[in-house]
Amino acid sequence: MHALVFDGQLKLARDYPAPRAPAGEARVRVLRAGICNTDIEIIRGYLGFRGVLGHEFVGALDDGTRVVGEINASDATCPTCLRGDETHCPNRTTLGIVNRDGALAEFLVLPTRNLQRVPDAVSDAHAVFVEPLAAACEITERVHIRPTDRVAVIGDGKLGLLCAQVLHLTGCDLIAIGRHANKLAILARRGIATTTDPDSIRGAFDVVVDCAGHASGFELARKLLRPRGTLVLKSTFHGAQAMPFAPIVIDEIAIVGSRCGPFAPALRLLEKKLVDVDALMDSEFPITRGIEAFERAVQPGVLKVQIVMEETGK
Amino acid sequence: MHALVFDGQLKLARDYPAPRAPAGEARVRVLRAGICNTDIEIIRGYLGFRGVLGHEFVGALDDGTRVVGEINASDATCPTCLRGDETHCPNRTTLGIVNRDGALAEFLVLPTRNLQRVPDAVSDAHAVFVEPLAAACEITERVHIRPTDRVAVIGDGKLGLLCAQVLHLTGCDLIAIGRHANKLAILARRGIATTTDPDSIRGAFDVVVDCAGHASGFELARKLLRPRGTLVLKSTFHGAQAMPFAPIVIDEIAIVGSRCGPFAPALRLLEKKLVDVDALMDSEFPITRGIEAFERAVQPGVLKVQIVMEETGK
Repeated sequence: MHALVFDGQLKLARDYPAPRAPAGEARVRVLRAGICNTDIEIIRGYLGFRGVLGHEFVGALDDGTRVVGEINASDATCPTCLRGDETHCPNRTTLGIVNRDGALAEFLVLPTRNLQRVPDAVSDAHAVFVEPLAAACEITERVHIRPTDRVAVIGDGKLGLLCAQVLHLTGCDLIAIGRHANKLAILARRGIATTTDPDSIRGAFDVVVDCAGHASGFELARKLLRPRGTLVLKSTFHGAQAMPFAPIVIDEIAIVGSRCGPFAPALRLLEKKLVDVDALMDSEFPITRGIEAFERAVQPGVLKVQIVMEETGK
Repeated sequence: MHALVFDGQLKLARDYPAPRAPAGEARVRVLRAGICNTDIEIIRGYLGFRGVLGHEFVGALDDGTRVVGEINASDATCPTCLRGDETHCPNRTTLGIVNRDGALAEFLVLPTRNLQRVPDAVSDAHAVFVEPLAAACEITERVHIRPTDRVAVIGDGKLGLLCAQVLHLTGCDLIAIGRHANKLAILARRGIATTTDPDSIRGAFDVVVDCAGHASGFELARKLLRPRGTLVLKSTFHGAQAMPFAPIVIDEIAIVGSRCGPFAPALRLLEKKLVDVDALMDSEFPITRGIEAFERAVQPGVLKVQIVMEETGK
């Protein structure tokens, strides 16, 4: 099958062996898949992954049922899984990220329990956004956002734009802080306050979500937060940051890491058109032009690039 | 009056001017006061404080009522105070720490609303522990500790010993990790599991409380914590620590700073003898021997040193 493979270099394979589903897993014919910043970071050496890239997808089962899939394949039997933290299973593989070939190929396999049916009202192009939108929902899954809270989202990349839209729905007093007027305009069109000048806003936010993707996002988040406020970390950038500890104790800050999220609410938000993902689309390429698609995706400021395997007319 | 004053050097003043209470404040005749690690850090340059040291005390009002006092004097009118975060008032002074003379003197002043009556069943020596015990109660005030949680306390200094005792009362599965068998024995006598060898315990703690007072405590805490666990920071040591961010996001850790706590529950715990502070006493000195008291308090491994102003027979 066709597949976009990273073996130290990104390559388009034309005869990559199609996966077979072991017991408990299903083979999915991929319809569309997205290129995520994590894929780009993997190409730059993050996590040392080798294999088929990609973890954002919509596909079809043999009977034609359209599905999306949670990307963490857990063992479902260990204490971590049994307490409900399957996405943290110490024995997990992760689609296109850790020890499991990914979605930028004609076929993939995932545990059957990871798959969720896509409602008819959700198009293929939209369904590919379920995975990153679920990651945005993980903020409200992990942290109680009150409708009376003042909330700031730092970063106007794809994840920041989805996080701001999810937080907007809580009714909170929200502002999105970014560097690109054209991306912030996507949020402004939905009535979300935005700024490219963080110095123009007074601090004392109850919650600040760092989606900046670089260390300066944390510094700004810390500055904007009120004492006893919550700083949600979404960025998984490389390296360590020198963090002074005493101010965290003195101001009684909470720092909460947030990663993969629940698919069911993300599907509901898309089905009910409560989140705009059309505005996040940049371009689509057939898998045969996958290298070109990556060249496009790594350009600064480019939003979602999708790879089309086969058209369903949805 | 006699006072232990830091003006770049620690000095015993014999004729320091006694404070007068402004409107809304009360003058308290200090009966006893404790020497805290924060006092020792101030002498080493922390926070740049100048004035009378000390913030752990029991005293008497003019009518003889024994009182303890919350150390943060807030303005009680700003948005921070009005939402209930008085200890974070941006205009606060803090007894013996920030812009307010402290308790290691014959008299101090504090806002009347900061004072709480000491029950008869609580001795002077015990009442001096209300402030640090309140800081221990701030853990359970800030974080929901479940009786089913596995909890570790790192550090067997005075604060660690109090935190472990408060957490023990939740019924949680607790272990205290320290470096001094003699201090851990105080906890062991109360039925708390202890170890000097963190390598001997398996990880996956739901909550880890870092009272170590040095950077290695954070590293150990991080190692012991399960994914989605909570790391409570009590240590206010100097300097910054290089913290890798990606693991916080990937493991969805929560890091929660915790500082000063509520006095009322601390008084209840002492009144009902649910916490042992006798075992934390090292020695007591009259204020005229205050310099000697500090020389004792800075010795490694020494527990609580108290300064006695005047005996009440309690």
